[in-house]
Amino acid sequence: MKLKGKQHSRSLASSRKEDVQKLLKELGQSIYRKMNEGVFPDVVIPRRSVRNMVYDEVLKQYVLGESSVTRSSQNIKHIRPFTHLVWLAFFVDKLLENGKTSTLRDVYYSAQAYNVEFKDQPESDDIITDLEARFSRPRENFSIYPEERSAIFGDVTIEYTVPGYEGKKLNLASHPDGYLIGPSLSTAELVETSAEMVIAVEKGGLFTRFVEEKVHDKYKAIIIDTAGQPPRSTRFMLKRLNRELGLPVYILTDGDVYGEHIAMVIVSGSANAAHLRDLTVPSGKWIGVWGSDIVRYKLPSIPLTDHDFKRLHELKKDPRYRKGIWRKELDVFLKIKRKSELEAFAKYGLTAIVDKYLPEKLEAAKSL
Amino acid sequence: MKLKGKQHSRSLASSRKEDVQKLLKELGQSIYRKMNEGVFPDVVIPRRSVRNMVYDEVLKQYVLGESSVTRSSQNIKHIRPFTHLVWLAFFVDKLLENGKTSTLRDVYYSAQAYNVEFKDQPESDDIITDLEARFSRPRENFSIYPEERSAIFGDVTIEYTVPGYEGKKLNLASHPDGYLIGPSLSTAELVETSAEMVIAVEKGGLFTRFVEEKVHDKYKAIIIDTAGQPPRSTRFMLKRLNRELGLPVYILTDGDVYGEHIAMVIVSGSANAAHLRDLTVPSGKWIGVWGSDIVRYKLPSIPLTDHDFKRLHELKKDPRYRKGIWRKELDVFLKIKRKSELEAFAKYGLTAIVDKYLPEKLEAAKSL
Repeated sequence: MKLKGKQHSRSLASSRKEDVQKLLKELGQSIYRKMNEGVFPDVVIPRRSVRNMVYDEVLKQYVLGESSVTRSSQNIKHIRPFTHLVWLAFFVDKLLENGKTSTLRDVYYSAQAYNVEFKDQPESDDIITDLEARFSRPRENFSIYPEERSAIFGDVTIEYTVPGYEGKKLNLASHPDGYLIGPSLSTAELVETSAEMVIAVEKGGLFTRFVEEKVHDKYKAIIIDTAGQPPRSTRFMLKRLNRELGLPVYILTDGDVYGEHIAMVIVSGSANAAHLRDLTVPSGKWIGVWGSDIVRYKLPSIPLTDHDFKRLHELKKDPRYRKGIWRKELDVFLKIKRKSELEAFAKYGLTAIVDKYLPEKLEAAKSL
Repeated sequence: MKLKGKQHSRSLASSRKEDVQKLLKELGQSIYRKMNEGVFPDVVIPRRSVRNMVYDEVLKQYVLGESSVTRSSQNIKHIRPFTHLVWLAFFVDKLLENGKTSTLRDVYYSAQAYNVEFKDQPESDDIITDLEARFSRPRENFSIYPEERSAIFGDVTIEYTVPGYEGKKLNLASHPDGYLIGPSLSTAELVETSAEMVIAVEKGGLFTRFVEEKVHDKYKAIIIDTAGQPPRSTRFMLKRLNRELGLPVYILTDGDVYGEHIAMVIVSGSANAAHLRDLTVPSGKWIGVWGSDIVRYKLPSIPLTDHDFKRLHELKKDPRYRKGIWRKELDVFLKIKRKSELEAFAKYGLTAIVDKYLPEKLEAAKSL
């Protein structure tokens, strides 16, 4: 058992809460100050348009440029989003104060309790993203969580910080079907682990196969089911396992452009989270299923659809896909015009993916 | 803590395995016997067509009628499905013998390891359903599990029967984000519980809200997240909690026709599982959100879409919707022409659904 890389002087949950509440207070004070000075209050937010996004080679993710927007209460067109943002700041403060979690949809409906009206949920979602951009903090820090959940299994001991469970510990290797990654796990301390790597797989069936075949023992691995494109809580957890425990992260997806992009989003985030920093694992490695694996392992495959080709050409324009394995494998998919699923390895027996493919790819990953 | 309603002389997993392997052996013996007698072997399977489905008022579910199909190796048109079925029986025996789980997709690809060819996955899925119908056993008993997972939380102690975990116990109240319901939980013994009811909710966000607001304590409840239309493993678990532990099951969904149908499928199964008996909770109660709740609680709502109306009229033709609350609420939806989400209660504060709505509906359920 090794101790976590970094000792926290206080719990993650309480430091997150203090951090955000401090930012909220400053925002409120700036508004009051301007009113006292007889000036119309405003809020300045980094501009989130595509034209203000640039790819940062060092951070290995999209970031926002220098451009910003000002929402001024003096401008009749700005009054609505300005008011929405101020209400949201107030509501987030209440959530944190009372130790409650919520979802994007909860926030939309909660506004009605305050006679604040959003015309639809996309409008309230957008204001939440504005507050994220304003504070450079993900909405999970505001206690707004995704509704989707994915799962984790492996020898890591956590310590809860949520109300009613503070100080309680749990080892995540006792339930072989896996533990959901929700608000409690997201805010738990990572106390100790014997694991030496994290393996993220795209599918629940494979997750179960990996546990059943004891991948966690054989490779000293923590196994994560991303359940397709992973929810942000899961990307946040992958980042924490990587950064706090120093574990390398390997990603295994279906052998198609969507699988490749699942891996890319874990590694370098999504363009629409360009205003955030805490959701990426820049050292993460996509170990398969590559287009070239379809050929090498003679996997059962099916032809790419028009939709696949369209997506492929979109990704080719993305600067993140300009080099390395990302570029190389996009070109292979384009050449062979076929795709495979992870389960295709069952052609060689149910355990072939664990006995043969996984060790070969983990070995190859050393030179990636 | 009360003991489980029924003492099992041996584990569920091992009795399931013996049960299915006995059926497989009999199938194999009948084929060999016919060959030894110089007769072309065949397999008789209940006919699964809509014309052979009838609604059983006592069982409260669709069942298959008397009609059957014979797949004879003498008929050139039958050779393909006959061979597929015999191979599947062989493969399931291997799965059970080796204690491995699989998915529908795994089976499709595994066939290629034996040079057995399915033209696509629907063809292999269909053969799996044939074997279910032949044996009147769900495919989970063949160790073929759904890939989707939903979750459970509450004071129930289970004892695993899967390899490597035999005899280990776990209480499902220690991880507030919830435990996935996969093969291990599906085959675990339910040892003891202090719970007095099960509450199934349609959404992950609400599941978290319920745990956060201690619904499990206040109502002595086990909470299940169905994650939309529940996977079969989850329906099977609901049935077990109901039948083995004697717990009433209450179902809470969005206030729309899809939500109503989620509840109906938990209570009375789906038409395409008419050949099975183990997936229903006939005494289960849909406690909301009803169409009439939208009116009574003045919930934020949106207009039904054309698609909603189409589905509504389909359900009105289903005999299961001919009476009681099912019929009444379909009519209300048709009259008010609107629908609401569970989160809409946040209009009255985040905890209103737990503090006000849930107790009122549980009370009302007594007279359902």
